Amino acid sequence: MEFFDVVRTRRSVRSFKAEPVPDEVLGKVLEAVRIAPSGSNRQPWRFIVVKNEAVKQKLIPACGDQKWLAEAPVIVVACGQIFDWNRGSYMGEHSVLVDVSIGMTHLILGARNEGLGTCWIGFFDNAEVKKVLGVPEGWNVVGVTPLGYPKAGEKAFTEPGPRKQLSEIVSADKF
Amino acid sequence: MEFFDVVRTRRSVRSFKAEPVPDEVLGKVLEAVRIAPSGSNRQPWRFIVVKNEAVKQKLIPACGDQKWLAEAPVIVVACGQIFDWNRGSYMGEHSVLVDVSIGMTHLILGARNEGLGTCWIGFFDNAEVKKVLGVPEGWNVVGVTPLGYPKAGEKAFTEPGPRKQLSEIVSADKF
Repeated sequence: MEFFDVVRTRRSVRSFKAEPVPDEVLGKVLEAVRIAPSGSNRQPWRFIVVKNEAVKQKLIPACGDQKWLAEAPVIVVACGQIFDWNRGSYMGEHSVLVDVSIGMTHLILGARNEGLGTCWIGFFDNAEVKKVLGVPEGWNVVGVTPLGYPKAGEKAFTEPGPRKQLSEIVSADKF
Repeated sequence: MEFFDVVRTRRSVRSFKAEPVPDEVLGKVLEAVRIAPSGSNRQPWRFIVVKNEAVKQKLIPACGDQKWLAEAPVIVVACGQIFDWNRGSYMGEHSVLVDVSIGMTHLILGARNEGLGTCWIGFFDNAEVKKVLGVPEGWNVVGVTPLGYPKAGEKAFTEPGPRKQLSEIVSADKF
């Protein structure tokens, strides 16, 4: 798809078909993540691809009990490795949030390009998700998303919801 | 451009032509930012578009003295507004880093789509940049990027540098 069509028609999807995601399609989406940029090319990320039903069910209570998540054939959990750099002179160990968010955005957009729906979940308990997936010390969970074909098909991908005007989010030469 | 071509040929660009960025082109790139997703659709961001030479020069010392930044006709400074939500039950006031990084990734990819080079800068002093641009309390600077046509033209956009293998960044059902 054309880049701007991907951006314009990416929507949060919360209802999925049971249809599995073919490995080849998943591979394309993950390739978009793999080549994503990161500070000093550190690539401080790990994307855990959860397809196992029992593991998916264990993730639900760790994600604010959002049961609809398990409807998707895949749940992706994006993790970041804490590194010793104080981005912007204030982010400290949260510096990695920036890198993993770049990779996750590539995943979300790449998925849309393949007709797959996602929904970036920020409502989760880091410690609980880490326990379920065996994420080691020095790593944190940055985001979670279901991944699958929307129940509504291509109709799921429509114009984005309401947004601020450009004049509210852009300014010239000063805040 | 095709989505995957945009992703595959996005490179960090550090040398720019003096040629200004037409307003129409800049508008397209900012539109890709405007419609980007954010947690609960908060859109907690402000993108400051700096073209004024004197302001650009003041930004240099606040960005680790990276003088090459001023070669670009535009410098974009992405700011985030702190909100009361503890994403992942641990991010606290850094929760906004995730949202602004999504918007910034849309900007970086949208710029590539228009033949514009960018380079995400994390080496800056938040307090200093805020002072130069009058960013109020409750807001932080998340990222800075030059924006302009690469001196090397389209040749600047080649395959990405070395990356980890998929097997190093992806795992199944557990970390």
